[in-house]
Amino acid sequence: MAKGKLMLVSLGPGDLCYLPPAARTALTEAEVVIGYGVYLQLIAPLLDAARQRVVVSALGAEMERAGEALELARNGRIVALVSSGDIGVYAMAGPVFQQLARDGGPQDGPEIVVVPGISAVQAVAARLGAPIAHDFCCISLSDLLTPWELIERRVRAAAEADFVVAFYNPRSRERHWQLEAARAILLERRVASTPVAVARAVTRVDEQIQVTTLQELDVSAVDMFSLVLIGNSQTRQLGPWLATPRGYREER
Amino acid sequence: MAKGKLMLVSLGPGDLCYLPPAARTALTEAEVVIGYGVYLQLIAPLLDAARQRVVVSALGAEMERAGEALELARNGRIVALVSSGDIGVYAMAGPVFQQLARDGGPQDGPEIVVVPGISAVQAVAARLGAPIAHDFCCISLSDLLTPWELIERRVRAAAEADFVVAFYNPRSRERHWQLEAARAILLERRVASTPVAVARAVTRVDEQIQVTTLQELDVSAVDMFSLVLIGNSQTRQLGPWLATPRGYREER
Repeated sequence: MAKGKLMLVSLGPGDLCYLPPAARTALTEAEVVIGYGVYLQLIAPLLDAARQRVVVSALGAEMERAGEALELARNGRIVALVSSGDIGVYAMAGPVFQQLARDGGPQDGPEIVVVPGISAVQAVAARLGAPIAHDFCCISLSDLLTPWELIERRVRAAAEADFVVAFYNPRSRERHWQLEAARAILLERRVASTPVAVARAVTRVDEQIQVTTLQELDVSAVDMFSLVLIGNSQTRQLGPWLATPRGYREER
Repeated sequence: MAKGKLMLVSLGPGDLCYLPPAARTALTEAEVVIGYGVYLQLIAPLLDAARQRVVVSALGAEMERAGEALELARNGRIVALVSSGDIGVYAMAGPVFQQLARDGGPQDGPEIVVVPGISAVQAVAARLGAPIAHDFCCISLSDLLTPWELIERRVRAAAEADFVVAFYNPRSRERHWQLEAARAILLERRVASTPVAVARAVTRVDEQIQVTTLQELDVSAVDMFSLVLIGNSQTRQLGPWLATPRGYREER
């Protein structure tokens, strides 16, 4: 049997003008393309229904999706598993390697290739100018798989060490209080006027970006498709832009 | 006079297969392309010497480069200022907006467009599998513009809150002790066997990636073109791969 291949392909923020050739090549090479339905819609113009099998997965069920993709590749198929943003950042690369570990490791398994892409925090940052021009961290506020105590410890550490913070998975119907709790922790260390951006569907037709402050942030307007970016003590609003300088010392 | 435009264009890790169409379009549109010489070599096949002016900048001198690019755009030119990686992450977007603030802000200035790209940490993570699949932070170890005390505070916070850490600018001839100091802080909180990767020139012909541990990390082999990635307490080596799970709870 031919040896299969699993390609983990990042789709970027949405607009195909941000999809690099490496991702297009992988999508063309694939015999089977697996992903959440909304992601597959983004790349529909690049797929060939006559030649490729497209497997639409439900939202959630990531371990099953990872297992299915690995199984197809083990059976000799050329498989592209897709995620929006960067597949290595809060996306399907994690579950695939967790599943691989459970299955006993990579030996004798299919070839695996990871194609990186532009993650949400970068697409948002580009629209805003230079908010992550210096040290920053990414924190998921989802406590489905991570205890809230650890998430809170990370938010506190970020606040104390003056990191710019990008919150992924900031809020959903079921997880409605975590963002407000994180905001309260940040307000212990950062001034009320700290710039904050709430971004949704960046680079897509329904893109929305709102610049506000830590004090004024309307948590109820944030949903699971949003990213929330919190400036540090040096981040400044400059007309429509947000910028964080590279250091605290005055330059030439 | 025609109104100018300044495009801040991310070139990604190096191999042009990671350069999205948005960046290619910007480079084609530009009348003037400004950047550090090594970056301009990466995109030489995409430039047209007969039609475009190419301005080669020295390494360093970022504020001057930013000022020059802004000035050309103010004078009506279509300018592309380029950085490798993501121009918004430890690159030229920072100095441009700092210069814009000094010049009195964006009003009446040229149009500015930022094109995001794949940063070094993502290119390295893709080669390694899934090391940044959950919360992570990026810290520059350069104390040229940031006091060491603040950098140390950030390293300590990252260690205490169990972030995966990407060190940018980890070491140079003049800054030779900072990485060792950061390693010592991390070893106070993380086991000696914590997986570490040292990566250099990822996606380029001279790509080098070494997987080691926090204990075994040979700091003297790290230079200013390297990125050092430190796993957290959950990161595991899996054959040639590094993977960080999405949480501490066991999944289905």
